[in-house]
Amino acid sequence: MRTRAAVAMEAGKPLEVMEVNLEGPKAGEVMVEIKATGICHTDDFTRSGADPEGLFPAILGHEGAGVVVEVGPGVTSVKVGDHVIPLYTPECRQCASCLSGKTNLCTAIRNTQGQGLMPDGTSRFSMLDGTPIHHYMGCSTFSNYTVLPEIAVAKVREDAPFDKICYIGCGVTTGIGAVINTAKVEIGAKAVVFGLGGIGLNVLQGLRLAGADMIIGVDLNDDKKPMAEHFGMTHFINPKNTENVVQEIINLTKTPFDQIGGADYSFDCTGNVNVMRQALECTHRGWGQSIVIGVAPAGAEISTRPFQLVTGRVWKGSAFGGARGRTDVPKIVDWYMDGKIEIDPMITHLLTLDDINKGFDLMHSGESIRSVVLY
Amino acid sequence: MRTRAAVAMEAGKPLEVMEVNLEGPKAGEVMVEIKATGICHTDDFTRSGADPEGLFPAILGHEGAGVVVEVGPGVTSVKVGDHVIPLYTPECRQCASCLSGKTNLCTAIRNTQGQGLMPDGTSRFSMLDGTPIHHYMGCSTFSNYTVLPEIAVAKVREDAPFDKICYIGCGVTTGIGAVINTAKVEIGAKAVVFGLGGIGLNVLQGLRLAGADMIIGVDLNDDKKPMAEHFGMTHFINPKNTENVVQEIINLTKTPFDQIGGADYSFDCTGNVNVMRQALECTHRGWGQSIVIGVAPAGAEISTRPFQLVTGRVWKGSAFGGARGRTDVPKIVDWYMDGKIEIDPMITHLLTLDDINKGFDLMHSGESIRSVVLY
Repeated sequence: MRTRAAVAMEAGKPLEVMEVNLEGPKAGEVMVEIKATGICHTDDFTRSGADPEGLFPAILGHEGAGVVVEVGPGVTSVKVGDHVIPLYTPECRQCASCLSGKTNLCTAIRNTQGQGLMPDGTSRFSMLDGTPIHHYMGCSTFSNYTVLPEIAVAKVREDAPFDKICYIGCGVTTGIGAVINTAKVEIGAKAVVFGLGGIGLNVLQGLRLAGADMIIGVDLNDDKKPMAEHFGMTHFINPKNTENVVQEIINLTKTPFDQIGGADYSFDCTGNVNVMRQALECTHRGWGQSIVIGVAPAGAEISTRPFQLVTGRVWKGSAFGGARGRTDVPKIVDWYMDGKIEIDPMITHLLTLDDINKGFDLMHSGESIRSVVLY
Repeated sequence: MRTRAAVAMEAGKPLEVMEVNLEGPKAGEVMVEIKATGICHTDDFTRSGADPEGLFPAILGHEGAGVVVEVGPGVTSVKVGDHVIPLYTPECRQCASCLSGKTNLCTAIRNTQGQGLMPDGTSRFSMLDGTPIHHYMGCSTFSNYTVLPEIAVAKVREDAPFDKICYIGCGVTTGIGAVINTAKVEIGAKAVVFGLGGIGLNVLQGLRLAGADMIIGVDLNDDKKPMAEHFGMTHFINPKNTENVVQEIINLTKTPFDQIGGADYSFDCTGNVNVMRQALECTHRGWGQSIVIGVAPAGAEISTRPFQLVTGRVWKGSAFGGARGRTDVPKIVDWYMDGKIEIDPMITHLLTLDDINKGFDLMHSGESIRSVVLY
């Protein structure tokens, strides 16, 4: 069949909206009609050419929601008509990683996914002239119809609006999950969030959900403050206004009883390795945990004195919020529908597929938190 | 009173054994007759002048065992005649750190201890001409008699031999505790220990105690192999014999079911920041934990790509094995007396106080695992 898609033809160029060929689902695969998709920094990272593992031509997009329209042989966990969120981190429930109970990083289809291919080593997408087009992060939600492995879709309730829950496919889950799955923040904690963009806001609301007492936001842009406060931030620091952001956080978190100070948890949502170091070093001696969420430029390295670790700080990272997609994503959709978390104020722009490049412009100018393409 | 002690008069010089003055215990303090003390790398780090926080003159030594001979006003937890192990990490059970339940790094007397003083800001030691001598790590076990805060002694059973249990005051607890308190290694785990000296051997026996399946030792010296095997090592890697120690560990830990590979836990006992990086990167994607135990040279930094953390590895450190001294040290003494852990083969040399500098020579030449001074 044919479908309309925005294709990344080469690195650094705008996406090109066109008709492409899409083969039907093979064994263990499903075809999904994407109803809405967010535009995420990771898409732009690859589109721009900065991603050393980027492949072209490719159909980007990994933050979508839609409806199953066809299932391949052997598919048992979803059926035609089911509402689903595509998962760039699948959950096979059978590999050593899934069965470890210690990680969400399923490895069942890692190799082919990294090559922009379905698990059988081929692509379902091609140009009208027959040239294969790469899948992207196993999702390719910048196509109106796409094919995914069964293990890479989360079945969700049917009354949830696509243009909001698509954001649960990446940003919402990444932020909230880092708090509840990776850091396991407890009631009464003091936490710091570096970078108050789309991920940072979701970390904030994850901290509010977890019952944190003090939720400090750090951003170079004062304009981020009102929205951050809406999502739970209790204190704001602009590094431009302080000599030493680490010391300021330590002072802010001291109490008459605890004159050591430091955050119980910190989260880097900037991708800047210098900020990652600050995020570690502002945590509390003895037990502070710092979680790296942001994606650093290729080749960039984090560093610190090992004394920071020996005196009890823990350096961790989080991918897709430590969430097991098929198990946890439907719960987060429920939380949204039940009003436990908010998404609506973060969806700042709705676009058509034809305007998808405008979404990248809005991202670069800082005007959008999230732009969503509605098919 | 007067006591014999080995005094570090200045950086880089041998210790000088002499008579010194010792004041009696003030409120909340106890005087202990040290019966035996180990000589640890940390003592040598300070003696040599490499420790940027080293103070002189000082009475070094922090790995001792002895008997309480006098108690100051208000002391309630120990009495004259009790057998004790001095604690360079005290346990006040009242500060924010102790009460957090998350760390052993009691902060009750941290400031004065770092200045080589008792909690009231003065020293109990002085030269015969009246010049004050600094305490060291709150212990100063290179003196036949020493004074310590009550919160810095662990009361232990009286049938345990001083010349063995003194080692529990640092090395044994540091190694075993890193496994059971910091890493919380579980039965069946695969672990790697970098550096098979005194600490490394205790990590090995901690792993054996925890029921680890695969215990890989890494050392540049093949001669370490027999003793390491005695303490539980199941596989040995000499980095001189392999191009890539990280890849070799990953290959060694692969199974037919788990083709990702990597250690569940790794421990750095070298203090070398490049080794610390290898120790992190050889752990398993998704859940590997690396524990820094070794003390790095002043100013040295660890580094890695943040991707290592984002894909699920955790970087931690451990001080005094995460042990709460007054609570946990008596248990480790019991384990030794019950035969659950071994110490005797690691005490390779017994010395008199007059020969204490020979202990540093034996350390430098690699002849000793632990030299112990018997008073």
